[in-house]
Order: sequence, then C-alpha cells, then structure tokens
Amino acid sequence: MLMNDLIIRACKKQDVERTPIWVMRQAGRYLPEYRAIRKKVSFLELCKTPELAAEVTIQPVDIIGVDAAIIFSDILVVPEAMGMELNIEEGTGPVFSHPIRNVADSEKLLRIDPSVKLKYVLDAIALTKKELNGRVPIIGFAGSPFTLLTYMVEGKTSKSFSNIKRFIFQQSKTAHKILELMADNIIDYLLAKIQSGADLVQIFDTWGGILSPHHFEEFSLQYMSKIVEGLKLKTDVPVILFSKGIGSSIEKLTQTNTDVIGLDWSIDIKEAIGKVGGKAALQGNLDPTILYASEEVIAKEADRILTAVGKNNGHIFNLGHGIHPDTDPAKLKFLVDYVKEKSKR
Amino acid sequence: MLMNDLIIRACKKQDVERTPIWVMRQAGRYLPEYRAIRKKVSFLELCKTPELAAEVTIQPVDIIGVDAAIIFSDILVVPEAMGMELNIEEGTGPVFSHPIRNVADSEKLLRIDPSVKLKYVLDAIALTKKELNGRVPIIGFAGSPFTLLTYMVEGKTSKSFSNIKRFIFQQSKTAHKILELMADNIIDYLLAKIQSGADLVQIFDTWGGILSPHHFEEFSLQYMSKIVEGLKLKTDVPVILFSKGIGSSIEKLTQTNTDVIGLDWSIDIKEAIGKVGGKAALQGNLDPTILYASEEVIAKEADRILTAVGKNNGHIFNLGHGIHPDTDPAKLKFLVDYVKEKSKR
Repeated sequence: MLMNDLIIRACKKQDVERTPIWVMRQAGRYLPEYRAIRKKVSFLELCKTPELAAEVTIQPVDIIGVDAAIIFSDILVVPEAMGMELNIEEGTGPVFSHPIRNVADSEKLLRIDPSVKLKYVLDAIALTKKELNGRVPIIGFAGSPFTLLTYMVEGKTSKSFSNIKRFIFQQSKTAHKILELMADNIIDYLLAKIQSGADLVQIFDTWGGILSPHHFEEFSLQYMSKIVEGLKLKTDVPVILFSKGIGSSIEKLTQTNTDVIGLDWSIDIKEAIGKVGGKAALQGNLDPTILYASEEVIAKEADRILTAVGKNNGHIFNLGHGIHPDTDPAKLKFLVDYVKEKSKR
Repeated sequence: MLMNDLIIRACKKQDVERTPIWVMRQAGRYLPEYRAIRKKVSFLELCKTPELAAEVTIQPVDIIGVDAAIIFSDILVVPEAMGMELNIEEGTGPVFSHPIRNVADSEKLLRIDPSVKLKYVLDAIALTKKELNGRVPIIGFAGSPFTLLTYMVEGKTSKSFSNIKRFIFQQSKTAHKILELMADNIIDYLLAKIQSGADLVQIFDTWGGILSPHHFEEFSLQYMSKIVEGLKLKTDVPVILFSKGIGSSIEKLTQTNTDVIGLDWSIDIKEAIGKVGGKAALQGNLDPTILYASEEVIAKEADRILTAVGKNNGHIFNLGHGIHPDTDPAKLKFLVDYVKEKSKR
C-alpha cells in the first residue's frame, strides 16, 4: 500500500490534494550524499550493486522530499545486456567500444531475458520497495529504442549524430530490425521491473528530437507505441513517454496509449495543453537551469507552469530535462516545497 | 546587375521561373577544393585573407551551381572585433580564452566601427562581387546577439549550456546590456556588408532554441527584431532570420519585419507554412544528413518539401542546418540539380 500515491493519481487524471513533483536525475551528482557513495564505486558498479542503487534511489526522497523514487540505473544497461561492451568513464561519458555499423554487428544483438541479464536492476527495485515501505511510488524506466540505437551506433556522445543518421538512412531495414528487437526487449524489461515493484514506468526518448517529424514517427514513435501497447496488454501501471526536443510532434504521442506525456522546456506548456487536449496527463517543462537562479526567479517560473495548468488534474511537476550536476540541492528543495505549497487544492 | 536574382525575388515573394537553392556552409570542408586551400592556411587566416575568402566563397557557385554565394567568414569574428581573444583550433572548435562571466568582463567589450575592425570581411565581399560579376547574389551574415553571447560566455563548445544559462538568469541586466551592444554592432556590420556588395543578409540564431519560448523572446527575439528594424531603416535588401530548434516559436519571427524565415529540419514545413501564414518567405527544412542517403531517398525527401510548398512564391530551398563536412559533393550537386529541374514553373 502506498502512503503517497499522488503521482499515480495524477497519471490517471484523478483528484489530488496538490500537484506531485519529482525531478529527472534526482538521484545523482548534485547531491553530496550521492557523491560520497560514488567516491567508493564507479557509476556502473553503483548500477550493479542493488544495496547501493537502492540507497541512492531513496536519497532524494529523504533529503529533498520528492513524491516518487526513480530507480538508480542507466538506459545503456539494456544494450549492454544485449551483448555490447559498455564503458562509462568519468568526464567522457558512456562508450561502446564496438558500435553497431552494419548487418553483421546487428546480428550479434541478443533477445534477452531481463530476469537473468538485468537481475541486478530488479533486485535493486525489490530492495528499494522494501526499504521505502510504501512512502512513495517507484518509477522504473528504459530508453526508447531509437535513443538506445543512437548510442549503440554512435558509440559515444555525439554532436552531429552523423553515424546514426547515416545508418538509418543508408541501412533502414537493418535499423528497423534492431529497433523491433529493442522494443521487444524493453517490453520484457519494463514488465519485469513492474513485477519487481515499479509502480509506474517512464520511457526516455532523449534523441527522438534529432529527427524530422516524419522520421520521428518512422524510427522512434512507432516503437514507443509498440512498447506502450505491449505493456498495456499485461499491466495497468501508468506509462510516461518523454521525447526531448520534438516540438509540435508531442501531439503525436497521444496516438499511443500513454498515460502521461513528458515535456521538455522548449515548448510552451499552454501550447502543449492545447495539443494534447486532455488525452494524456502532462509532466515537466521547467528549464533545469532555472535552478541556477534566485528563489524569486524559481518561484516566478514555477508559477508560470502552475498557472498555465490551473488546478486541473493530470499534472506532474518536473523539470524539462535532468537536473544539472552543479545545481545547489537547496534550490531544488526550495522548488519542491514551493510547488507542494502553491498547488494545494 | 544580377544575372540570377531568383533568391532576391523569392525573398520578396515575387514570381520565379523555378525555386532557388543554396545551402548553409556551402563554402566548406565537404569540398576537396576548399580543403586544398585550408591545407595552406588556418581557418582564421582564411577568413582574414580577402583573396582566399573570395575564392572559397565562389567555389560552390562554380562546382555545385547554387543560386547564391555566402561570403566565407565566421560569426565569431564580431566578438573578436569587440575585443575577445579568439582561437579556432582543428578538432576542438572555437575557443575564447577569456569568456565573459561578470560585469567587469562585459565592460571591456567594444562598440565597433566595422569598416575598421572588420575591414577584411568587407574587402572579401567587394572582391567576391567583382569576381562574380553578377552571376549570383551575395549573402552577408551575422550571428544573432544571443548566439554570439552564448559562445562569449561559454568560451567554447558546450553541451549543457550551463554557463550561458547561469549568466542570463543570475545576471540578467548585464546580459541585456551586452545583447543591446551586440545588436548595435551587428546592425552596423550588416549595413557595412550591404554597402560593400551583399545583396541579402542572414542572421544565424543557432542557439535561440536552447531557451524556453518566453526566454527566447526576452533574450534572443527582441534583439533580432531590433537588428531587422535597424536594417530596414536604411536599406531594402532582404533579411533572413534563422533560429534553430525553436519549434512553434517560428511564428514569433513574423513579429519582426524579416523577409524570410529559415527553418531547421525539426519542424514539419506544412506546420511552418500554417504558422507563418504568408507573412514571410520560407527557407530550408531538409535534414542535412539526408545527403548521406541514396539519390532515390534524396529525391523523395526533396519532393516532400517541394510538394508541401507547391508552386507558391516565397520559397528558397536549403538544408535545415549546415552541410556536414563528410558529405559527398556529388550528392549535393544531385540535390541542387533535382530541385532546379523539379521546381520549374
């Protein structure tokens, strides 16, 4: 039983006493308590040690007072489980030493059983569930097939995205075959997370926005749609789709059966409300760098979002992207307290 | 007298025999002829040597057959002229060794006379004008005040844009003061370019899209608007505004007096046509990475844009961003020939 199920109710557009809030990357580097643990283990070790993953997952619930815990992990553990060698180095970001560039590479990718290959994530969820003891819901997550493919083809962080673009435009069939496989793996992975205790799930489509709208539909949206359908066949836990930088295409996310649409900060929330038209709940929208500003500015920017939504149901407060590592935790705490107070019904 | 003034007529929404085409970064690294010259001089030396700048400016007119020559230069020569030390290194991109971070830094920035400080650009234009002898129009350009400020504050290429965001949100007054100064300098710079022979001008707002819509209005749009007004007071040469990644905010560009709105590839051109509503001509929209694909795919993607626009006036074909350095020039030539043929009235 959940003592605080505000987010679940917001996902379902049910009545809430106030607007729930959590923030992307809330378990992370901006917290001194997280950095203390990271001094002892690498990023991937942290992901793969359930006790530690559970500990950092719960930190923002204790320290900041957010309304959900998002399980500490990384979207790239899925391609790793599918057979790709992953290195996450300080400073340079994640690297796949053997990126996917052709059919032969693609044929090495595995259809996985997450209860074997990603057991450490499921264990971390079960442990977090036990330790949280119903204080707040747990969010499970996965990268979208296209976003994962982007990393798998680029091999490392890219600015031009030339490799992934060349791949999808020159080898469309192979790309679609991998995306299909990713979608199947992700459905199983998210279902396993739900079975282990996740109360809702979010799909991060960080790179959908590098595509033109019609290519977004072809290479990203249809596979997210497949995942949502796959989940909905077996569970009624809420699903959040978050595509970054897709602008007006957020309207297309309503074509899926998603419960919630995540908004980055580049869209006016009023426009989003108009486009989504009540077909899904909304989450996000605050520019994460607003947390660099004074409390006065933070309050003003939070008000802009709260006022646009009004006291309507189906709203989860969040940033429009992950919190920056150099954010002062006190500023986030201020935002969370402010939203909780200001949004009271 | 211009022998080919298709672009000028398209900017003014006048009748044309076919759709004109040029591409951003058409004078650049994808051309072996350009790379041959760059073997002998550095990027900044090339910018500052009028004979060589004119030569690479004209290359794509000769080799590819584009309908305009855009003067070879860099948007960062303006902050350099204002007193900032600029280094452009191979591989790492441009670096300002002393980025702007506070009032004291900002007070060192100069109000410039472009005919002195940027004489080499004006000389390159005059020389290009002479050598082109009216074959095609010459495009002069500048970065938008916000885009230049982004580089000036970040100091180097950024992914998180934390420094510029912190600067504008923590030191708004100083930011606005610099943006005002930039706008004044850019007006004079573009007017000087026009006097030296530029037949139209484009403002590159590469980073306007990192801002939320209301911050885009506050920190980027209003200064571009000021520039357009400043130009229109003294000249009737057409102005193109190109803001990357601003999504629906392209509608707001019509609030300025701009003749043309440049589109990146992330917006559906049909949506753009609807939003701009004939208040400005349109340019761009093709994903530059489409040039990695087969001729068949390139033709299909070009058709998508040509069909959406129909045989309406006020359309300039272009990519949605600069051509990638690893593009095969033959593919660009194919696109240019295809658009010329297919768009015949």
